[in-house]
Amino acid sequence: MSNTWGRKVKITIFGESHGVGIGAVIDGLPVGEAIDLQQVQLQLARRAPGNSALATPRKEADALEVLSGLFEGHTTGAPICGVIRNTNTRSKDYTPQLPRPGHADLAAYLKYNGFSDYRGGGHFSGRITAGLVAGGAMAMQILARRGIAIGAHIAQIENIKDDTFNQITSSLLQGLTESDFPLLNPQVQSAMTRAVLQAKQQQDSVGGIIECAVCGVPAGLGAPFFESLESRMASKMFSVPAVKGVEFGAGFGMASMRGSTANDDIILQNGKFATATNNNGGINGGITNGMPIVVRAAVKPTPSISQPQTTVDLTTRTETALTVTGRHDPCIIPRAVCVIEAAVALCILDAMETDL
Amino acid sequence: MSNTWGRKVKITIFGESHGVGIGAVIDGLPVGEAIDLQQVQLQLARRAPGNSALATPRKEADALEVLSGLFEGHTTGAPICGVIRNTNTRSKDYTPQLPRPGHADLAAYLKYNGFSDYRGGGHFSGRITAGLVAGGAMAMQILARRGIAIGAHIAQIENIKDDTFNQITSSLLQGLTESDFPLLNPQVQSAMTRAVLQAKQQQDSVGGIIECAVCGVPAGLGAPFFESLESRMASKMFSVPAVKGVEFGAGFGMASMRGSTANDDIILQNGKFATATNNNGGINGGITNGMPIVVRAAVKPTPSISQPQTTVDLTTRTETALTVTGRHDPCIIPRAVCVIEAAVALCILDAMETDL
Amino acid sequence: MSNTWGRKVKITIFGESHGVGIGAVIDGLPVGEAIDLQQVQLQLARRAPGNSALATPRKEADALEVLSGLFEGHTTGAPICGVIRNTNTRSKDYTPQLPRPGHADLAAYLKYNGFSDYRGGGHFSGRITAGLVAGGAMAMQILARRGIAIGAHIAQIENIKDDTFNQITSSLLQGLTESDFPLLNPQVQSAMTRAVLQAKQQQDSVGGIIECAVCGVPAGLGAPFFESLESRMASKMFSVPAVKGVEFGAGFGMASMRGSTANDDIILQNGKFATATNNNGGINGGITNGMPIVVRAAVKPTPSISQPQTTVDLTTRTETALTVTGRHDPCIIPRAVCVIEAAVALCILDAMETDL
Amino acid sequence: MSNTWGRKVKITIFGESHGVGIGAVIDGLPVGEAIDLQQVQLQLARRAPGNSALATPRKEADALEVLSGLFEGHTTGAPICGVIRNTNTRSKDYTPQLPRPGHADLAAYLKYNGFSDYRGGGHFSGRITAGLVAGGAMAMQILARRGIAIGAHIAQIENIKDDTFNQITSSLLQGLTESDFPLLNPQVQSAMTRAVLQAKQQQDSVGGIIECAVCGVPAGLGAPFFESLESRMASKMFSVPAVKGVEFGAGFGMASMRGSTANDDIILQNGKFATATNNNGGINGGITNGMPIVVRAAVKPTPSISQPQTTVDLTTRTETALTVTGRHDPCIIPRAVCVIEAAVALCILDAMETDL
Repeated sequence: MSNTWGRKVKITIFGESHGVGIGAVIDGLPVGEAIDLQQVQLQLARRAPGNSALATPRKEADALEVLSGLFEGHTTGAPICGVIRNTNTRSKDYTPQLPRPGHADLAAYLKYNGFSDYRGGGHFSGRITAGLVAGGAMAMQILARRGIAIGAHIAQIENIKDDTFNQITSSLLQGLTESDFPLLNPQVQSAMTRAVLQAKQQQDSVGGIIECAVCGVPAGLGAPFFESLESRMASKMFSVPAVKGVEFGAGFGMASMRGSTANDDIILQNGKFATATNNNGGINGGITNGMPIVVRAAVKPTPSISQPQTTVDLTTRTETALTVTGRHDPCIIPRAVCVIEAAVALCILDAMETDL
Repeated sequence: MSNTWGRKVKITIFGESHGVGIGAVIDGLPVGEAIDLQQVQLQLARRAPGNSALATPRKEADALEVLSGLFEGHTTGAPICGVIRNTNTRSKDYTPQLPRPGHADLAAYLKYNGFSDYRGGGHFSGRITAGLVAGGAMAMQILARRGIAIGAHIAQIENIKDDTFNQITSSLLQGLTESDFPLLNPQVQSAMTRAVLQAKQQQDSVGGIIECAVCGVPAGLGAPFFESLESRMASKMFSVPAVKGVEFGAGFGMASMRGSTANDDIILQNGKFATATNNNGGINGGITNGMPIVVRAAVKPTPSISQPQTTVDLTTRTETALTVTGRHDPCIIPRAVCVIEAAVALCILDAMETDL
Repeated sequence: MSNTWGRKVKITIFGESHGVGIGAVIDGLPVGEAIDLQQVQLQLARRAPGNSALATPRKEADALEVLSGLFEGHTTGAPICGVIRNTNTRSKDYTPQLPRPGHADLAAYLKYNGFSDYRGGGHFSGRITAGLVAGGAMAMQILARRGIAIGAHIAQIENIKDDTFNQITSSLLQGLTESDFPLLNPQVQSAMTRAVLQAKQQQDSVGGIIECAVCGVPAGLGAPFFESLESRMASKMFSVPAVKGVEFGAGFGMASMRGSTANDDIILQNGKFATATNNNGGINGGITNGMPIVVRAAVKPTPSISQPQTTVDLTTRTETALTVTGRHDPCIIPRAVCVIEAAVALCILDAMETDL
Repeated sequence: MSNTWGRKVKITIFGESHGVGIGAVIDGLPVGEAIDLQQVQLQLARRAPGNSALATPRKEADALEVLSGLFEGHTTGAPICGVIRNTNTRSKDYTPQLPRPGHADLAAYLKYNGFSDYRGGGHFSGRITAGLVAGGAMAMQILARRGIAIGAHIAQIENIKDDTFNQITSSLLQGLTESDFPLLNPQVQSAMTRAVLQAKQQQDSVGGIIECAVCGVPAGLGAPFFESLESRMASKMFSVPAVKGVEFGAGFGMASMRGSTANDDIILQNGKFATATNNNGGINGGITNGMPIVVRAAVKPTPSISQPQTTVDLTTRTETALTVTGRHDPCIIPRAVCVIEAAVALCILDAMETDL
C-alpha cells in the first residue's frame, strides 16, 4: 500500500475517521509561491460534513493546522504538513463483526486480518480526502498564477442531469469552485435536491456524476503510454472513494461514434492551434493538445443506508441482517466535487512541474 | 515521459511503427516459471496486423526474439528483453507537416518540437502495444498456475452490443483468449462485422467497448486511495492508445442507481465470503473482495480515415484539407482485445507480487 | 525534491528546526504488529538535544504524538503520522544573509531563491532526523520479532578509534542500541570525550565514523545493479546530514587487497552456508548472503563552529567574517548513531517486505 | 528486483554474460539532441574485453545496434533501445554447483532457487554494464552541450596511487575520457601495470579506487535527505559490480578532521560564489553548490582467481576446493573507469532534468 502520490508534486495522506486526526504532507510544490490558507480553509469547508440537509449531520470544523513547509506565507521547497483533528466522533455506532455491503469493510478485514481500524471505515473513510482537498487547494492557487483554472460541476444526481460544458472559461470554472452546489444550469438544483431528500426519506442513497474541466492548460503535458495524462488523472480520480468510472471527452460515447464524427478537426483560432470539436477532451496520445481537458467521474451511491441489508457475521460466519446506524450522507456528490477538483489540480500541477 | 510501468513486475516498451524494431523488457516476473514462447507468439498473432478484412492490410509476422532473462525455458529473476523487427514499412504514406485529426500528431509535434518520428505515428503507434502483449502473455501463463484466469470480449462495436458477463468461469475466459473475435454471444458477430465493413466502405471507422474479467483472484489485492487496484488498472488501461473511458462493475451505471440496488449483499457461498451481486466489479475500497473483477474500456474509432478532414499545415500555418492515405484499421477493437487482456494481466500479476 | 523514501515501507519526513513542529509519516509497515511507543520514545531520547556536555545545550523533550495508523496498539496497514512539536527555539541566533561554511545555507539559498526557512538550517537541520528515528525504532521492533538485530557503535571520533566488530551477536547489537555512547571497547570513551571537549574548548568540532551491523538477516535481500542492497542502504545513509562516505565490509580497504585475501571462502557452519571471513560485509552481487551486514558511515565535523570563518554576504555580495553564534554540537556522532541505526532498520524492513 | 533506474532520465539494462545479447533502454533523454553513435562505440570499446594484457582475453566487439528512439540522428523523446549481441561465449568453463568465493553465485543461488543463469555470472556479470556505458555516453554528449564535463581516473591500484585532482577543468576531464588508462600523473602507470601483472602471474587479482569529477555543474542539483545528490549518485555507483565504498570530497578523511579544517570557506571568484577548499566535494546538504563534484569509488579485487579456494558444493553440501578456470581480468579498474563515468553522467543528467 502507498499513501503517497505524484512524481514531483507529491502528496501523502494519513488518518482515520475516528482516530486522533487526519491530514496530508504536500511535497514538491514550486518554491516561493504565496499560499492563502484562508482560501484553503474555504475549500475544506465545501467538503466538511454537517453543512447541509443533504449531508451527514456529523459536524466537523476541519480546521487545518500547518506544521511545516511555509515560511513568511510562502512555499519554501520543504514539505508542508497539514493536520486536522477529529472532534466529533461517535465510534459506538460501528459493529466491527458486521461488514457493511458496498463498503470496504470486508475487503479490509480480509486484507488486514482484522487489524484495521473499523470505526467509521477507519482509513478507508471519505473523511481522509480532506488532506487531498487541502493539497489541491494549494495547487489551484499556484495553477491560477500560471493561467490555469479548474472547476467541476454536478453533472448528474440519480437521473437528474445538469447541462454539459459548452464554452469553458476561466471565470466559469472559478465560479464553480466557489459554490456548495455547483451547476452549469442552476435550475436543476431543486430536482436534484428533491431526488436526494426522497432517497433519504426512503432510507436510501443516490449516486451521480461529477464533470471537471481544466482550461488554460498548455499543450505538451503527459506522454504516450504509461505516463499518459489520462493514465495519471484516472489513477488519481479512482483514488477518490466511490468513483467507479472515469472518462475523458466524449468517453464511453466514443464507442458508438464513427471516426468522421469523433475526430476533432484541427483548426486555427486566433493564430493558435485548436480543434473544432473536443471529443478527445483535450488529450491526444496521452498528451494535452491545448484544448480544455474535460473528465467525468461516476460516483456510486453512498453504501451506508439504514434499510436492512444482508451481510455475514465475521465471528459466527453466518448470514445476518444489518441495519446501518450512525450519521451518513444520502448523497456524497456535492461534497465530493471539491475532492475531484483537488485530485485534478494536484495531477495538473505535477504534470506542469515534470513534463514541460 | 516514462515507458516503464509497474511496482515489482515492470515492463518497459520501446520502438516506432516504422523504425528498426519494437519490443519490451519485462522485469520482476516470479522466478522459476516456465514460459511457453509459442503461446506468447499466439497472442502476438491475435494482435498482429494483416490477418483480417476488418484490419489494416499491413502484414507483419511479429516474430518475437528473446534476448535475455530465460534460461532453460524458465524465468531466472533477470529481465526478459523481447524484440520484434519491423519488416513491412511504407513510410512514404506519411506527410509530417499535416497532423491527422484525432491522432497524437499535433500534440507530439508541440511537445517534441518536431523531433518525433512521425512515420506511422512513430512511438505513438498502436503497434508498440505488441511488447505489452508479449509481457501480458507471459504474465497470463504464470497467473494461470495460481488459478487466475483473464479474458475479454468485444462488448460493443458501434451500436451492436454483445451480452454482458453472467457466470464468469475460468474456462469461459480461457476460451475468449483463444479467439480472434471473442464474444459471449457469437450471434452478434455478423452484425458487428457488417458495421465495420459498412464504415470501411464509407471511408470511415468505428469505435467500441472491450469488457474484461478476471476470476480466481484472491481478496486483498490493492489498497485504499492512491494504490487502489482500480487506480492501477485504470492507469494501465488508459495507457492503451484510443482508450477514452474505463469503468469497473456497474461503472457509470452506478450514477443513476440507489444504494439499495448498488450495494452488493454479502453472503456465504460454499462456506466462503461472496456477494449476491457484483456491481462493484470485485473491488471495494480499492481492494479485491474475492469476486471476479469486471472492467470495461471505451475505445474510440480509429482516427485514420480516408475521408477528407480539416487540419493545419505545420509549415505554412494554414488550414487545409487532409486525406489520410496508407493502410489502416476500420475498427481496432478485435485486435485490441488481447492488448487489454495483457494490460490487466500485468497489473494483476504485479499486484499479486506486491500486495499479498 | 522528495521527502519520501522506500518501496513498500515508506517514510515521509517533514518539519523545520524552528518551525511549529517536525515529524514523519510511516507507511507500509507489516500489519498486526504491536508497537511499543515507550521504546520509540527511548530512541528519540538518544537523539534528542540537551542531554550531554558533548551536545548542543538546546533542550527538547521530543515527545512524539501519534495521530494515526495505530489501533489498539497495533499497526493497521494505514499510515502512521507522528508529530513532535518544537518548544525551545531561538531563531534570533541566525543571520540569513551570512551562509555558514560547510552548511547547506548557500546551496539552499541558490536553489530556493531565498525562500527557504533559514532559521537553524530550517528543513536541512539534523533535527529533522527525529522522524527517521521514530520510524526506525518501529521498524526495529518488528525486525526483532523476525530475529533480526541492528546496532551501531562509535567506530571513530577524530583520531580515536573503537575496536571493530569481531563476533556479531544479537545481544551485542541490542546492547549498543541501549547506550548513549555505544562502544565495543568502553575504554576508549574517555579519550573520545576528551577529544570532543578539547575541540569544543577551542571553538571547534570533530568528525568520526559510525559502524553498524545487522545480524539474523536472511539471504536473498537486494538484487543485482540498481536495486542492490548496497545501493539502497547507501542511498538512505547518505540521506543523513553530514555523512560523506559509506562503505560495506572491508570497503575502501578492499582497494589495496588482493583477491586471494579479499574473497570470503564459502564454508558450512552448523550445516548452513557461511563465509570464513566477511570482507564483503554480508552482501555479494547486491544480495545478502546470510552473513551479518557491516556498513560504515563517515560523518563530517559539525560545520557550526564559533571560530571566525570567511563567507560572502548574500545582500552585499562581499566577503566577510562570520562568527557562528547559537547552540551547537561540538560532535554530532553520539547523537547520530541511532539515526544510522534507524536508516538501516527502515532499509532492511523494506527489503524484507519487497525482496523475499 | 528492478533493472530500471532514474526519475526522468531512465535506464533499463538487460542481458546475461553468455546469453543471446545484452543491452539497455534509455528513456527520457532531452529531445532534439544529436547523438554521435561512433562516440558511443568508442566508450564501449574502453569497456570491451580483450583489449589489453591486464584484462580478460575474451574478445567481444560490443557493437551496438540501436533499434529505436533516434530519428535522423536525434533524440525524439521516445525510448532508445540498444542491443549488443554476445559472440564469444565459452560456457563450459562454469560449474554451476560450485559457487565462487567473492562472487554473487551463492547469493544468487539462494535467492533464485537455482534458476538463475550461472554461466559467467549470468545477469550478475560486469558485462551487463555495457548498456550503462552506452547510456552514459549519450548522456555525456548532451551534458557537454550544457557545459558539463565528467571524467575519472585510476586513483589507486593495489598500493600504487595516482595524484588527486587539483585544478579541475573541462579539458582535463575530457582528456581522461579518451584514455584507456586514465591518470593524472602518467608516471604511475608503469608501477600500476607491474602490480597487476605480478598479481596475474601469482594467479591473483588486485583492487583499486576510481575517482571521478564533474565540472560545470550548476548549483541546485539534488535535495535534502532522501533525494540528496549524494544519495542518488551513491545508489547508482553501488550498482556497479565490485564497488564496496563511495565517498564524496574528503569523504572518510573527514572523520579525523576538525570543523575548522573541513569547512569550505565561502568566497567570491570572478564575482561568483565559490569555496576556498572543496572538502565537501561540491555538495552541501545534498545539493550542489557550484563547485566541482568529486566522488571516489572503492573497487574490490576481481573475485575470479585461479588459485584454489574453499567453497561448498551445492549438490553434495560438502566443502570442497575450487580452482576457477575460464578467462578473467586480473584487475577490472581500467575497464571500470568508463562505467563509473557513465553512472555519474546518467545521474547528473537526470538531476539536470528533474531538479532545476
